[in-house]
Amino acid sequence: MPDSIDLSAVAWDGDAVVYLDQRLLPAEIRYERARTVEQIEGAITTLAVRGAPCIGVFGAYGVALLRTTIADDDAFAAAARRLRDARPTAVNLAWAVDRVLASDDMLAQARAIHDEQIAMDAAIAQAGLALIPQDGRVLTHCNTGPIATAGGGTALGVIIAAQRAGKRPHVFVDETRPLLQGSRLTYFELQQAGVRATLQVDGAAASAMARKEIDVVIVGADRIARNGDTANKIGTYGLAILAAYHKIPFYVAAPRTTFDGAIADGTQIAIEERRSEEVTSYAGTRAAPDDASVYNPAFDVTPAALIAGFVTEYGVIRPPYLGKLPPS
Amino acid sequence: MPDSIDLSAVAWDGDAVVYLDQRLLPAEIRYERARTVEQIEGAITTLAVRGAPCIGVFGAYGVALLRTTIADDDAFAAAARRLRDARPTAVNLAWAVDRVLASDDMLAQARAIHDEQIAMDAAIAQAGLALIPQDGRVLTHCNTGPIATAGGGTALGVIIAAQRAGKRPHVFVDETRPLLQGSRLTYFELQQAGVRATLQVDGAAASAMARKEIDVVIVGADRIARNGDTANKIGTYGLAILAAYHKIPFYVAAPRTTFDGAIADGTQIAIEERRSEEVTSYAGTRAAPDDASVYNPAFDVTPAALIAGFVTEYGVIRPPYLGKLPPS
Repeated sequence: MPDSIDLSAVAWDGDAVVYLDQRLLPAEIRYERARTVEQIEGAITTLAVRGAPCIGVFGAYGVALLRTTIADDDAFAAAARRLRDARPTAVNLAWAVDRVLASDDMLAQARAIHDEQIAMDAAIAQAGLALIPQDGRVLTHCNTGPIATAGGGTALGVIIAAQRAGKRPHVFVDETRPLLQGSRLTYFELQQAGVRATLQVDGAAASAMARKEIDVVIVGADRIARNGDTANKIGTYGLAILAAYHKIPFYVAAPRTTFDGAIADGTQIAIEERRSEEVTSYAGTRAAPDDASVYNPAFDVTPAALIAGFVTEYGVIRPPYLGKLPPS
Repeated sequence: MPDSIDLSAVAWDGDAVVYLDQRLLPAEIRYERARTVEQIEGAITTLAVRGAPCIGVFGAYGVALLRTTIADDDAFAAAARRLRDARPTAVNLAWAVDRVLASDDMLAQARAIHDEQIAMDAAIAQAGLALIPQDGRVLTHCNTGPIATAGGGTALGVIIAAQRAGKRPHVFVDETRPLLQGSRLTYFELQQAGVRATLQVDGAAASAMARKEIDVVIVGADRIARNGDTANKIGTYGLAILAAYHKIPFYVAAPRTTFDGAIADGTQIAIEERRSEEVTSYAGTRAAPDDASVYNPAFDVTPAALIAGFVTEYGVIRPPYLGKLPPS
């Protein structure tokens, strides 16, 4: 593996959407080409392509591609609906698909969504810089780096920008069970960016906080309601409670496309429950009895009251949030 | 695998200490015989034998066995020290080794320690019964069942007793990273006992609590200071904070041998840090970059203020704890 690489999560190449299979990281860097609705939808549902902003960009290109390969309007509409509904919690996917469908030049629209994501990520990174102290110890959960957005990243984009600005952050990375996006993706991306990082099991976050090792917590989001309630990777809500208990500020970094002005609060966010095998086995080895009953929500909802601010391309938005959050 | 089995974690058979290799559960039930100091120490350090009370009983038999195989007094004393120090956090091991060493009939003393553990566990189970509501939803962390104590179990012993008393508890089992004692051992023991159980990643505990699904949290302990500060499996401290936030009572079940009257508070408890590979790989598959820097404390310390009561063989002890906890 090269010392430093610039991985692009998603790209358009004329007759396919190319994507990095994130399930294989960090062991293997493999790109695949998706052409059919099954391939595009499958890449999303299996989490080969993941990260709320990234699946938005990928879905946008996917719809634009399918418009060139499916002549029948009804069949195309059905295919677009399949992509739109491939994952229910992140709002970016449905938003991006709808925007492409409403445009005259679908490919141009998909490219615009991708370009805007890159620009939003850059603005988020600059807006968040002031939240990271010199030599600051930052805790994060799941993966919100470049491969999660197809841009520069959200929460991890802030951290990487802080490193480039000479702030030398030290990042405590929750491994993020069940799918270990922290171990596999975030630790890897931080290494690539030359940021000091320490990996820990999710259950060790409270202990790290108690040892006064954490200055700030920053995470991403999958959907944010009008009042600021935030759906993000399972474990985020607990982390926000732990941060509040230890009086550590807890920030959420997200582009405007993650804010869902259509819902009033977190109770209206649909939470995807995923297969029990994600919990009961790893890389083919079973850890629990075959027929174990499993509770496997992919996300949880953090109430706005636990969030010190939203890091957006418009700057850091502080509570109270009602009426101040971006339109979706 | 048989439908129901009564597993004994540790047994004396005349010229060896027999133990269940808990690393192989639930896939395989395999007993091994330990005869040398290397074998006995190795079974403890590799967690083939684990659970604070269980390693106490195992260490007691181990010392008694080594007295019969090591004639030289200095060599025997050195071997006993090795067993005593095999793991630093749980107080039961050092306590049991010291007690056997101080006795005239070491085997009789080891047997007495084992018999007392069984009796203490039975008394703990009866004392805790009233804490489990009818059809109560109980959350637990790590493994505190029969195989963790070589008796009837502590926290899990309470739950199993509630099931036998017709209370039909439903247990939410934290998988307990990094070594998955919840998935591998607790879920398995609950199945054996016919108790309804749901497995979840540690990060899902807050979400389960927010859904009003949890009536009570009960866990075990590895060492308890005079003021009630409690060392237990990593993740316990965070769970106690989450329980407090959701106003759910949080109990610790432990025999008197887990209380360490020699230390005033949790700051004096040595926390074992274990190998990074426990976090970075599973069953031989790496999940993180090879050279990842890892924070892997095996335990954390829950302050007494977060604990609603200690379930002991003397009954449930309520705060304030100072002067009311059992002598070690």
